[in-house]
Amino acid sequence: MRTLYHLWLSPFCRAIRIVLGEKKLEYQMQTENIWDRRQEFLSINPAGEVPVLVESDGSAISGSDVVFEYLEEAYPNISLLPANPLARAETRRLVHWFNLKFNQEVTENLLGEKMMKRFLGLGEPDAAAIRAGYRNLRTHMDYIAYLIERRNWIVGDELSYADIVAASHISALDYIGEMPWEDNELVKTWYARIKSRPSFRPLLGDHIPGAPPPNHYANLDF
Amino acid sequence: MRTLYHLWLSPFCRAIRIVLGEKKLEYQMQTENIWDRRQEFLSINPAGEVPVLVESDGSAISGSDVVFEYLEEAYPNISLLPANPLARAETRRLVHWFNLKFNQEVTENLLGEKMMKRFLGLGEPDAAAIRAGYRNLRTHMDYIAYLIERRNWIVGDELSYADIVAASHISALDYIGEMPWEDNELVKTWYARIKSRPSFRPLLGDHIPGAPPPNHYANLDF
Repeated sequence: MRTLYHLWLSPFCRAIRIVLGEKKLEYQMQTENIWDRRQEFLSINPAGEVPVLVESDGSAISGSDVVFEYLEEAYPNISLLPANPLARAETRRLVHWFNLKFNQEVTENLLGEKMMKRFLGLGEPDAAAIRAGYRNLRTHMDYIAYLIERRNWIVGDELSYADIVAASHISALDYIGEMPWEDNELVKTWYARIKSRPSFRPLLGDHIPGAPPPNHYANLDF
Repeated sequence: MRTLYHLWLSPFCRAIRIVLGEKKLEYQMQTENIWDRRQEFLSINPAGEVPVLVESDGSAISGSDVVFEYLEEAYPNISLLPANPLARAETRRLVHWFNLKFNQEVTENLLGEKMMKRFLGLGEPDAAAIRAGYRNLRTHMDYIAYLIERRNWIVGDELSYADIVAASHISALDYIGEMPWEDNELVKTWYARIKSRPSFRPLLGDHIPGAPPPNHYANLDF
């Protein structure tokens, strides 16, 4: 059986869960507490990070973007990239934008400070970082709205990996109740469309013991 | 004419120069002082980073890995990825390893502290960061040696983008005289092989005003 080593609130792991769902590939999940630096896991991925996908034959693929490109190449029937090389490049540019810039400016400031620090016993959340996170989130939502206004999805007429990556970061923030949905109707409508896809449903069932999501999290009409 | 917006010592730009050379694609170079945050440049790449490749028709592609994947797709005749999806994934895993981990643990601690800080007037180099950079460099050289010992190149029998990325970081460190070649004969032999390729020759001609390279930098027998 295909296995995904993951962490519940990692946007990078969430993106791969959605990709596997869109491609209708079956898998089981295995939570990996990466901070334990388990030897068997490090021998699979020396970087010690999730997601790691292990195929039924034992082949391991590490890192969300690497796993994504692998899945595109190994299971091309349902593709999450446009056909044209320039449009593919634009998709990958936006994927990097969300996985580097959005992650650093928003996800780490909000999810990192409010959730992971408490969870890992790393001390009190940093109020300045949280304020910066809220400020940056508003700018990033405006950018997403700017993209969607001129395109049906983030890169074009079809859902792509860029939508999935953006929605993964947002869904992790939504799980901890930090998405200001009232601020941006366009982004809310786009997210509602992704949220209603069958590939997204497993994420809406997530329920971390001791840290349940707010009521609207799993609600398609939020 | 195809144009590459770049910075001389950026390993990310160096990698794309080598890729363009391997693929025998002509281009001109344009230095972009990204810290000036020039409006025209930001309109091409909102992230404000180099490399950016602009094709003759004006199409712009931003970010080294995105540019690389684009060049693979648009100009597939000479490929720098293996054919098998798992081997391609292994190549991309190592590319991320060097562009994220090596970059953070070595390149930024040595090139960033010793060269860029001085150049940008950001104050004195941090001695602790430099010591960490030297320590990490030794570990990373051991890892490269471990990979090359069992494979002809970093990922297999053929030169791949993983070799190019690793060599780009190392060549930037070599330019500032920070490569302890005497420490690792295997890594030196591998680098000598890359250095002697025609695609690498333009880099050996680099000469930044006010910051010339050491004599051995351009020497194939170093």
